[in-house]
Amino acid sequence: MANFKGHALPGSFFLLFGLWWSVKYPLRYLSEKVNKKSHRSQCYQRLEVIEGVAKIIFALIGMLAEQFVPDGPHLYLYSGKERSWVKLMNWQHTTMYLFYGLSGVVDVLTYSPLKVPLGLDRLMLSIAVFAEGFLFYYHVLHRPMLDQHIHSLLLIALFGAAFSILVEAFLRDNIVLELFRTSLTILQGTWFWQIGFVLFPPWGGQAWVEDDHSNIMFVTMCFFWHYAVAILITITNYTLAYCCIQRCKRNNGEIDIGLGIRKQKSDRSSLATLLNGSDEE
Amino acid sequence: MANFKGHALPGSFFLLFGLWWSVKYPLRYLSEKVNKKSHRSQCYQRLEVIEGVAKIIFALIGMLAEQFVPDGPHLYLYSGKERSWVKLMNWQHTTMYLFYGLSGVVDVLTYSPLKVPLGLDRLMLSIAVFAEGFLFYYHVLHRPMLDQHIHSLLLIALFGAAFSILVEAFLRDNIVLELFRTSLTILQGTWFWQIGFVLFPPWGGQAWVEDDHSNIMFVTMCFFWHYAVAILITITNYTLAYCCIQRCKRNNGEIDIGLGIRKQKSDRSSLATLLNGSDEE
Amino acid sequence: MANFKGHALPGSFFLLFGLWWSVKYPLRYLSEKVNKKSHRSQCYQRLEVIEGVAKIIFALIGMLAEQFVPDGPHLYLYSGKERSWVKLMNWQHTTMYLFYGLSGVVDVLTYSPLKVPLGLDRLMLSIAVFAEGFLFYYHVLHRPMLDQHIHSLLLIALFGAAFSILVEAFLRDNIVLELFRTSLTILQGTWFWQIGFVLFPPWGGQAWVEDDHSNIMFVTMCFFWHYAVAILITITNYTLAYCCIQRCKRNNGEIDIGLGIRKQKSDRSSLATLLNGSDEE
Amino acid sequence: MANFKGHALPGSFFLLFGLWWSVKYPLRYLSEKVNKKSHRSQCYQRLEVIEGVAKIIFALIGMLAEQFVPDGPHLYLYSGKERSWVKLMNWQHTTMYLFYGLSGVVDVLTYSPLKVPLGLDRLMLSIAVFAEGFLFYYHVLHRPMLDQHIHSLLLIALFGAAFSILVEAFLRDNIVLELFRTSLTILQGTWFWQIGFVLFPPWGGQAWVEDDHSNIMFVTMCFFWHYAVAILITITNYTLAYCCIQRCKRNNGEIDIGLGIRKQKSDRSSLATLLNGSDEE
Repeated sequence: MANFKGHALPGSFFLLFGLWWSVKYPLRYLSEKVNKKSHRSQCYQRLEVIEGVAKIIFALIGMLAEQFVPDGPHLYLYSGKERSWVKLMNWQHTTMYLFYGLSGVVDVLTYSPLKVPLGLDRLMLSIAVFAEGFLFYYHVLHRPMLDQHIHSLLLIALFGAAFSILVEAFLRDNIVLELFRTSLTILQGTWFWQIGFVLFPPWGGQAWVEDDHSNIMFVTMCFFWHYAVAILITITNYTLAYCCIQRCKRNNGEIDIGLGIRKQKSDRSSLATLLNGSDEE
Repeated sequence: MANFKGHALPGSFFLLFGLWWSVKYPLRYLSEKVNKKSHRSQCYQRLEVIEGVAKIIFALIGMLAEQFVPDGPHLYLYSGKERSWVKLMNWQHTTMYLFYGLSGVVDVLTYSPLKVPLGLDRLMLSIAVFAEGFLFYYHVLHRPMLDQHIHSLLLIALFGAAFSILVEAFLRDNIVLELFRTSLTILQGTWFWQIGFVLFPPWGGQAWVEDDHSNIMFVTMCFFWHYAVAILITITNYTLAYCCIQRCKRNNGEIDIGLGIRKQKSDRSSLATLLNGSDEE
Repeated sequence: MANFKGHALPGSFFLLFGLWWSVKYPLRYLSEKVNKKSHRSQCYQRLEVIEGVAKIIFALIGMLAEQFVPDGPHLYLYSGKERSWVKLMNWQHTTMYLFYGLSGVVDVLTYSPLKVPLGLDRLMLSIAVFAEGFLFYYHVLHRPMLDQHIHSLLLIALFGAAFSILVEAFLRDNIVLELFRTSLTILQGTWFWQIGFVLFPPWGGQAWVEDDHSNIMFVTMCFFWHYAVAILITITNYTLAYCCIQRCKRNNGEIDIGLGIRKQKSDRSSLATLLNGSDEE
Repeated sequence: MANFKGHALPGSFFLLFGLWWSVKYPLRYLSEKVNKKSHRSQCYQRLEVIEGVAKIIFALIGMLAEQFVPDGPHLYLYSGKERSWVKLMNWQHTTMYLFYGLSGVVDVLTYSPLKVPLGLDRLMLSIAVFAEGFLFYYHVLHRPMLDQHIHSLLLIALFGAAFSILVEAFLRDNIVLELFRTSLTILQGTWFWQIGFVLFPPWGGQAWVEDDHSNIMFVTMCFFWHYAVAILITITNYTLAYCCIQRCKRNNGEIDIGLGIRKQKSDRSSLATLLNGSDEE
């Protein structure tokens, strides 16, 4: 969908995942520092499965939206006597969503009885991001200069994230890589919104001049401002997670001193309590 | 051979290897999880030698086909008074096969008494894929747009596989890398067939318009559909391997309980039985 | 600031950091070889915090200079009825400084009670260098040939350093990577000065001919001479550090024999004495 | 020197090093397999120092040759009233040799009392190869097509070798990387000779047509034939080393059985005997 909504939808998906990760990974990292290896790992497995299902649902929404918007291809690939292609743009976007869907499927399979080897889930996510990157690369050739440039900046975030996730397939649960991925995902989310605002101003207004070199220069700089903001969001959420864990620790500590009896419970403290608090009590 | 057969032949070779690997690696991974370190490793060494020999044979077939088809160079490199080059296309294809042949030779040498260091076999395979990639890169310059684009998409699969195999030289027997290689090999196989169908429609019919931009767009997308299918094939075969191993385990378990005597045999169970069942009994 | 000062300022910052590192890392490496694991690590943490603060200050100076020089944008991003962009060059330079400032902030946070995971400081520095690289890349398109070439050579140093620092996020305290980073930082510093001298000769004189191909050739070669000098500086400072550590060792050894009492003090010898000598005595 | 000799000289240097490495590394690898960790390591350190000195000498020869051939710059960088550059080609070649000289210096320093950290020698060699690569890259722009292509193929070998040596800085004494470097060095050596034969046929004869596309195609393929030969040379020398070590082992074994007394000597057997046989006896 070459309109504002077509950019706002994937932007929201990426933003949601990015913000969620910016909370999840610091919480896990910090709570593991506090009490080493409790049975929280099971809780995280459940989270990964839920994330996988969310990816599948988001991908389905995206694919259906691309196919069945009023000016979509409605699942026709070619038509007419001359067998001309129908709405290839929408089909390409559908393909991008498809790979994220596949990534969700592998996420779910990893924690199924099949025991798909750990690491394949990250590999598949990396492939999905690479696929998005390559499709975008060929997608925007032969477009006006500003359109091409604003999309090609996205490629920096995409290939950066794809490489980083590829490394995660081998260095799993590395907090540095996870926060890097997080910041790049937030960047991708906000940048999709920015593309929407620049190319398809939602409240009308005059469009940006496509061939003005200073627009290009501003957009380049703006991309890095988005990244600075994404980094600040990540740092802020890390700090919030830190405060949260500190408070949990203090509360649990007091309980331990006061009662002794609830020791067993405090073992699965902090993050587990936060994430999974109600399922066994 | 710039015709349908010239693309179907290597396509079949890659497809054969890809499908074989999509069965072999899951079987090995899953059977190793069940019974740790039995003498199956010897059985796998034999398989690697057989693979090496298969590579050599396939490479020889490919080289002979490229040289001795009716319009081939018949081993003449230049001819005439002016020493003009003869059929350089076929010679370039011959060179591609040559490197896969060399990779087969190093595979065989690795398990010969020479004890070529482990890892060199993977390095040589990686070099063969890189060589194919670079030859293709220079091969398709100055061709019509669709021809060039459809071949250059192959480069993504080639360089991806080459890097992945290069890493395998140092991270040997890593199931994630092996399945990645498997999926890219299947992709390469099916894509060679696709190139054949697009550029040289075997049942006649009208050729694709070379300079139509929407053809380019479709072909890009189609490449990623091929990859999605390659991934699904890999997942399916992994699942089949899983079921197969589960059945073997259950059968062996029952025998163990019932007889006790056949314990020794069941040690080399599952994959070894499947692959090598008849050679000692 | 597209003038001599605008290149001399960042050049001096990089040169200062490069020279400081070319002393610090050899001293740390050699003193660790002499007495293994003393409480010097604390002293190095303090140094890292000081470096972080220095980065923040340098970044602030740079940003303020870019904004408030007489021909700067004075914090106006656009102006006039037509909302035309104001001095985007200066804004882009401000953005480059901003990322180094962020890197300083993460450096400080790493050793704050927040316990930001080790490695994120290196990752952030790497991102800052990448950001500088990408901004430069788009910055110099559409400029005269010599201008473009002399800046694009800088990209070799920038992307080299960015990759090397990225690896440091995972291979922390690796002396090989640290000295590589050091040499590339010195190179960047001297090259900024060189750019200033070539494009904006400070003592007037005739400017270089922009389109002369032999100027391009000389500049390419000159860049590598700068690097050779940067390597020689690093080697020289390493040698000085070696001599310094040797003398300290000899002195401490004599004291140990002579007095015995000062043993405790000599434990935190060599580098700690040099860097931190006066803070507890 | 843009003539046959100017390519034959560096070609011979690389070929010499490549052939020497193709003997040295297999010998070391195989002899280490036979008797684990003897005092041979000292012997290899001496060899590395000798290699370093050889690099310095070769680099000096190359630099002097480039400067003082009859049509060389004789150390003049610019001349005349207009300060025009003198023979920048030769100056660029001199710069390439310079970096290999620096690499030799770091090799020697590594085993000096200075104790330059292990790994810096490999890093410096990698930098030398990168420098050669980048200089070549800018060197051949704006040249006739065949000239440019034949040199740019060299870049594949150069950047491949540079990356491989960079990895060696961290994975030292890895036989796979060492043999890869060996094969690429042989390739570089033979390819320099090939460039000489193509661009400056030494026995006169007609020059190759610069703009003939089939010449380009042949040259591409020929480059890979050179690499196939380089691999075969490496395999052959490995096999010879294997036979040599086997014979040594058998001889030493017989001595051990026959005399018992010479046991001590046989400890430093095989390669040490070969390389260093006469220095203590």
